Amino acid sequence: MNTPIRIAINGYGNLGRGVELALAKAPDLALAGIFTRRDPRGLKPETAGAKVFAASELDARRDDIDVLILCGGSKDDLPEQGPALAARFNTVDSFDTHARIPEYFAAVNRAARDGGHSALISCGWDPGLFSLNRVYGEALLPDGDTYTFWGRGVSQGHSEAVHRIPGVAAAVQYTVPSEAAVTAARSGTRPQLTTRDRHTRECFVVLKAGAEPEAVRRAIVTMPHYFDEYDTTVHYISMAEFERDHQAMPHGGFVIRTGATSDTHKQLVEYRIQLDSNPEFTGSVLVAYARAVHRLHAGGHTGALTVLDVPPGLLSPKSADELRRTML
Amino acid sequence: MNTPIRIAINGYGNLGRGVELALAKAPDLALAGIFTRRDPRGLKPETAGAKVFAASELDARRDDIDVLILCGGSKDDLPEQGPALAARFNTVDSFDTHARIPEYFAAVNRAARDGGHSALISCGWDPGLFSLNRVYGEALLPDGDTYTFWGRGVSQGHSEAVHRIPGVAAAVQYTVPSEAAVTAARSGTRPQLTTRDRHTRECFVVLKAGAEPEAVRRAIVTMPHYFDEYDTTVHYISMAEFERDHQAMPHGGFVIRTGATSDTHKQLVEYRIQLDSNPEFTGSVLVAYARAVHRLHAGGHTGALTVLDVPPGLLSPKSADELRRTML
Repeated sequence: MNTPIRIAINGYGNLGRGVELALAKAPDLALAGIFTRRDPRGLKPETAGAKVFAASELDARRDDIDVLILCGGSKDDLPEQGPALAARFNTVDSFDTHARIPEYFAAVNRAARDGGHSALISCGWDPGLFSLNRVYGEALLPDGDTYTFWGRGVSQGHSEAVHRIPGVAAAVQYTVPSEAAVTAARSGTRPQLTTRDRHTRECFVVLKAGAEPEAVRRAIVTMPHYFDEYDTTVHYISMAEFERDHQAMPHGGFVIRTGATSDTHKQLVEYRIQLDSNPEFTGSVLVAYARAVHRLHAGGHTGALTVLDVPPGLLSPKSADELRRTML
Repeated sequence: MNTPIRIAINGYGNLGRGVELALAKAPDLALAGIFTRRDPRGLKPETAGAKVFAASELDARRDDIDVLILCGGSKDDLPEQGPALAARFNTVDSFDTHARIPEYFAAVNRAARDGGHSALISCGWDPGLFSLNRVYGEALLPDGDTYTFWGRGVSQGHSEAVHRIPGVAAAVQYTVPSEAAVTAARSGTRPQLTTRDRHTRECFVVLKAGAEPEAVRRAIVTMPHYFDEYDTTVHYISMAEFERDHQAMPHGGFVIRTGATSDTHKQLVEYRIQLDSNPEFTGSVLVAYARAVHRLHAGGHTGALTVLDVPPGLLSPKSADELRRTML
């Protein structure tokens, strides 16, 4: 076994924890440390012996870190941290604000080039693995259509939006792909599916004392951007039920591509994931790509990149020879 | 639009025809010619204006060809043609004798390096897209199991093996994944599945006059390597039924990866294809990878490579910028 690749974690929420657990499954990678803006003494890592440091110590520990995985949020943390840290480290992040990816890529690319580092942005499953499958599907079947479905799974953004409504004590929102839409997408009949056709939304809400259920329901289902374009069901539950039944973070989804290769022949390609834990799976994706980033950088790469730029074999701890012999 | 990439086809059976049809769907690629060992005047291409040449003219037309797609068979054609042509052209082939891939890779690699060309071997869906998904799955979920299922679809090798039995006038063999095995694989319980558990085999056979059905059946189901390890059903049909119902070449399959990311959480990743026409889909895969080979070679690459070495974005006619903006 060669010297392990040293991976550090920046930010220790659900995703940071998922990355930590994924590192424990990879014998060729070592956890170089968890960096947090909170008091390091307050953190309880999942793995025995994990070292926790203040985020302010990152620069002092640069020589111990081959790749830094950024586990902050896309809204407030990454727009600032991504470029700043790519100037000083090889990085992997899960920036997922689709509309802002080009400007984020440009900022990270400049910083990584200037600093001589490699920075993989927007990694995870969507953007990430689903992006890969959208690109593969369209390239293989150019005369066709792509359908992406998400769920059944928890959307944190939607859960938080419901939680912010006056009278709501706690809330979780599940995004649910419509079975009829999935079946239609697979059929190869190339249906046009509206936003409302594709997914429904299901909310489990704990009310504060005195809150008016019908008013809260109306505030949810009419909320612009989040709910108004969807059919939404609201269930009221007790805090005990919320705590018992809705703490897991399952998720999943499909990328379906159908296309015609001739007048008479249709083809279907489908990629599907079904996750008990969204953050643990996303953490596993980030870790596999951290291995690839280390190798690309060792081979001379600098600048920003995405999953679309990474040769698949580099994700595996196995050598190219071994992959050809055993996996091709 | 830039100048189209000029793709030529070597060998015009079912696969060559599939490649030709796929090229017709790709506006950035142009068919530079179909090369055949048969009399070129006897070929009827699918697309209007397709030029057909004798295989002996290949060298004379080198300057008109950016990438040559080899559509010969893995048993007799490619072991010789692959290295010979990689010395003189950028190539893509579908060499699919899994056990011999390492030696084939080495031979093609030497020839391509010496000739200053790029040669992608073992492309298609298995080996090919299924290999990709085996590698992605294992890299993302290292603590898990991978299951590959093929079918329901025609196996040409098995059909030919049945056809060679004395008394058989015509035959087609369908490989059928066992539903119970697919369900078990998806369950995340990590079942150990034997060869017999995973697939059954179904043969549709036309007997010659005077042939003894039970003797033929026994010859099929006990045939070593091909059938003896499987549960095989034999149906006898008329030549009219054979010609009416069994001329299509459907196929499909699954690559399923299940794994644990922690003591409590299981994850599932599944890749599935369902094909009306196996050769047309395989042709589409070869064509997308021909685009990537042209780009890699233009960027300085020489030698042999596999799908595991190709950055996914290079398969798409879209630029990296456009992919990030629209597909990520």
